[in-house]
Amino acid sequence: MEIAILLFPRLTALDAVGPYEVLRSLPDVTLRMVAASPGPQRTDHGALALVADTSIDDMPAPDVVVIPGGPGEVGVREDPRSLDWVRSVHRTSTWTTSVCTGSLVLGAAGLLEGRRATSHWTALDTLAGFGAEPTEERVVVDGKIVTAAGVSSGIDMALWLAAQLADEETARAIQLSIEYDPQPPFDAGSTAKASAALVDRLRRSSRFATG
Amino acid sequence: MEIAILLFPRLTALDAVGPYEVLRSLPDVTLRMVAASPGPQRTDHGALALVADTSIDDMPAPDVVVIPGGPGEVGVREDPRSLDWVRSVHRTSTWTTSVCTGSLVLGAAGLLEGRRATSHWTALDTLAGFGAEPTEERVVVDGKIVTAAGVSSGIDMALWLAAQLADEETARAIQLSIEYDPQPPFDAGSTAKASAALVDRLRRSSRFATG
Repeated sequence: MEIAILLFPRLTALDAVGPYEVLRSLPDVTLRMVAASPGPQRTDHGALALVADTSIDDMPAPDVVVIPGGPGEVGVREDPRSLDWVRSVHRTSTWTTSVCTGSLVLGAAGLLEGRRATSHWTALDTLAGFGAEPTEERVVVDGKIVTAAGVSSGIDMALWLAAQLADEETARAIQLSIEYDPQPPFDAGSTAKASAALVDRLRRSSRFATG
Repeated sequence: MEIAILLFPRLTALDAVGPYEVLRSLPDVTLRMVAASPGPQRTDHGALALVADTSIDDMPAPDVVVIPGGPGEVGVREDPRSLDWVRSVHRTSTWTTSVCTGSLVLGAAGLLEGRRATSHWTALDTLAGFGAEPTEERVVVDGKIVTAAGVSSGIDMALWLAAQLADEETARAIQLSIEYDPQPPFDAGSTAKASAALVDRLRRSSRFATG
């Protein structure tokens, strides 16, 4: 089984590394980090680069594709070659997935028309612009397209995916091996849980803010 | 404020990227990925490399140091120059922290003698060998040393740290921005929650297995 995780300049590191850390442990998997231009991809903050070894041209038919998000997703949306690749791999994939604003790339590729999907909470309106039906669930499965919410949700999605690709016992083993027993010291991880003032402040400062 | 996250060959990616994704958003912070030999550091699985731009020699006194784990921590423990750096930065740090088996590096540097600390659950006995008092809490604070449990626990630790370094509201804002509202599809993230058979299997296959 082949898994491709797409990297690009100005991606959000955890969007890619969360699923990577889960999926890499699946048995009988060839997992590769792919990019339109292989080599180091500087993440959004700038202090860290993730290296993609493989060109998207050299992974034309992965069984699973993961599209992370981050400010650089705009560049992917504007790159016809990358969008062609996304459309093309989707034709033969078992699962086409995204984390955070990676779903906007799926949208721009025309894959979310009429589909339930999610994204980073600040990007749900933008997602609707691609004909998707945005939902605020953390992991949304519609057919073979799986979209996850913001950044850290890729870990939850990948564990779900691991159970589909292998079995539940394998997914549980991976969960135990990465000791994923979350104990956030605060309870502000979603718009339903954070204060209205905080949600408003972050919404207004997001790159999707309007008006 | 300066934050250094140590990278090295065969580290576990999420150990470093979890804290990175949280701490990078703190205001007035210079965060750098540092390494004994800067450049791409191939992670344990091999499909992904993380790039360290900065030599440990060029970050002699960070306010916060984060030591991730992974099989490559053994190499760090055996490298006198790296251990000297860890001891040296600890003298002036505000917080000296580790994720997963990164605590074994702190132990090898002699910093955990008589201290409460944690590590990946398979490594707790090894941790005791450095004079530490191992505990199974997810984030352990003893003086200015903060150790976190396996892999994904670095996210929880970093949110706690963000509240100390800035304030709780800032930590909550970061939690909301990375949408850290964990919803694992399974409940097997700790030895207390996973089945005894699974715990036993993983313990016996771990690199710390004995007998």
